[in-house]
Amino acid sequence: MKKQQITIIKIGGKVLENKSDLSKALELFARINGLKILVHGGGTKLDGLLHRLGIRPQMVNGRRITDAQTLDAALMVYAGLENKKIVAALQALRCPAIGLSGADAGILLAEKRPVGEIDYGLVGDVKQVNRENLMKIIQAGFVPVLCALTHDGSGQMLNTNADTIASEMAAALSALYHTRLIFAFEKIGVLKDVNNERSLIKELDRQSYLRLKAENIINNGMMPKLDNAFMALNAGADEVFITRFDKIDSVGEGTRIVL
Amino acid sequence: MKKQQITIIKIGGKVLENKSDLSKALELFARINGLKILVHGGGTKLDGLLHRLGIRPQMVNGRRITDAQTLDAALMVYAGLENKKIVAALQALRCPAIGLSGADAGILLAEKRPVGEIDYGLVGDVKQVNRENLMKIIQAGFVPVLCALTHDGSGQMLNTNADTIASEMAAALSALYHTRLIFAFEKIGVLKDVNNERSLIKELDRQSYLRLKAENIINNGMMPKLDNAFMALNAGADEVFITRFDKIDSVGEGTRIVL
Repeated sequence: MKKQQITIIKIGGKVLENKSDLSKALELFARINGLKILVHGGGTKLDGLLHRLGIRPQMVNGRRITDAQTLDAALMVYAGLENKKIVAALQALRCPAIGLSGADAGILLAEKRPVGEIDYGLVGDVKQVNRENLMKIIQAGFVPVLCALTHDGSGQMLNTNADTIASEMAAALSALYHTRLIFAFEKIGVLKDVNNERSLIKELDRQSYLRLKAENIINNGMMPKLDNAFMALNAGADEVFITRFDKIDSVGEGTRIVL
Repeated sequence: MKKQQITIIKIGGKVLENKSDLSKALELFARINGLKILVHGGGTKLDGLLHRLGIRPQMVNGRRITDAQTLDAALMVYAGLENKKIVAALQALRCPAIGLSGADAGILLAEKRPVGEIDYGLVGDVKQVNRENLMKIIQAGFVPVLCALTHDGSGQMLNTNADTIASEMAAALSALYHTRLIFAFEKIGVLKDVNNERSLIKELDRQSYLRLKAENIINNGMMPKLDNAFMALNAGADEVFITRFDKIDSVGEGTRIVL
């Protein structure tokens, strides 16, 4: 019987870009009872740094190609600037945050994505969550704040999607805890019409997802999030929601994803 | 009776700049038996990033003035780029490293240095080591890798000298462990003549230090290190050495600092 609950919250790009939205999200996160993990991306802030450094972001089909200097910039923005500002803000809210990349305590082992039609460069696909080490950190009373970086176990850091990291966390912990996974962003949930909040889909199962996808009703930006949501559910996560950043402390808001 | 030993190694700027020197230092660090902590600076890499970002480093009497954009760059270089590359390298050496700033797990609380003749900006003087949280991390089997950043407990990250952080760690842990503190850099130890390695001072006590300082024999770069070394000894550290990065695994190399 799984008794204790763990809440895994992923906050996305646009929330990180807006100081007051981020403050609000962190305030609500700090108030959530019980065990919890925060996962954050970095998004356009990385593009901002690349631009300042005179490095042109390389994208193929909306996906980033991570060369060595882009990875260095990702280390700087994700693990440095963003992660530490979030940790310091949570500490001020009396939330015992500890910032981690996948290399820290060996939490997330990944392998460099094989070169297929596209060479994504230094991008990592998660191979293994070190649940034992993660549990040690959680059980010591700390609240992990994970950035979107992993390592390959041979000294190479890798860029990994933050939604995927959140899902992998939920999957790995679902055998031990009642696992609630929340993808938080700037919209109230999955919308049929992205410009109309009244078109919120309250519950979305895989069949409906595939149908809406085929009808081009689900927009491109939402698809990786939903794929990760179903991955986590398949792997045993108990509850998965997609909701707005200022609703992360309320149960049942936004879109509930079900199998 | 203090039984268990902990080794605290601080590696300095120039070692971080040279890939093979850094690899060598990390390889030796990974091999050190027993409990251990690594502290690293960032040094000229920060100047490199500031230069690329078009920010002019501001120095007064050889000390950095940390304005908001310099602090952001320090977060990126120290907590991001440097810390994660070191952690990934140690993980590859089977050393269970966990990278931490002073905000993570609330390890190092600091206060912004009061504005006197000089306004150093966002620089933190260490107020308190959270020994309880540090012990939880160490006792869980992890090896802390600390960068030169602290927080003020109210959400503000601060820039703090890495030598000072190493000394504060040694001081805080000396009540519980036999504490060995090693400042590792590119020279073999404290030299009477900075260009002559045969002028190594094997043992340096406070009296001799003050005399050599008065005679202008100790060079400026060495003084903060020595001040921190004596601070740690005064606070109870058992052994303090200043030695070359490729000697950190050998006991008694370099200059031993004594009261």
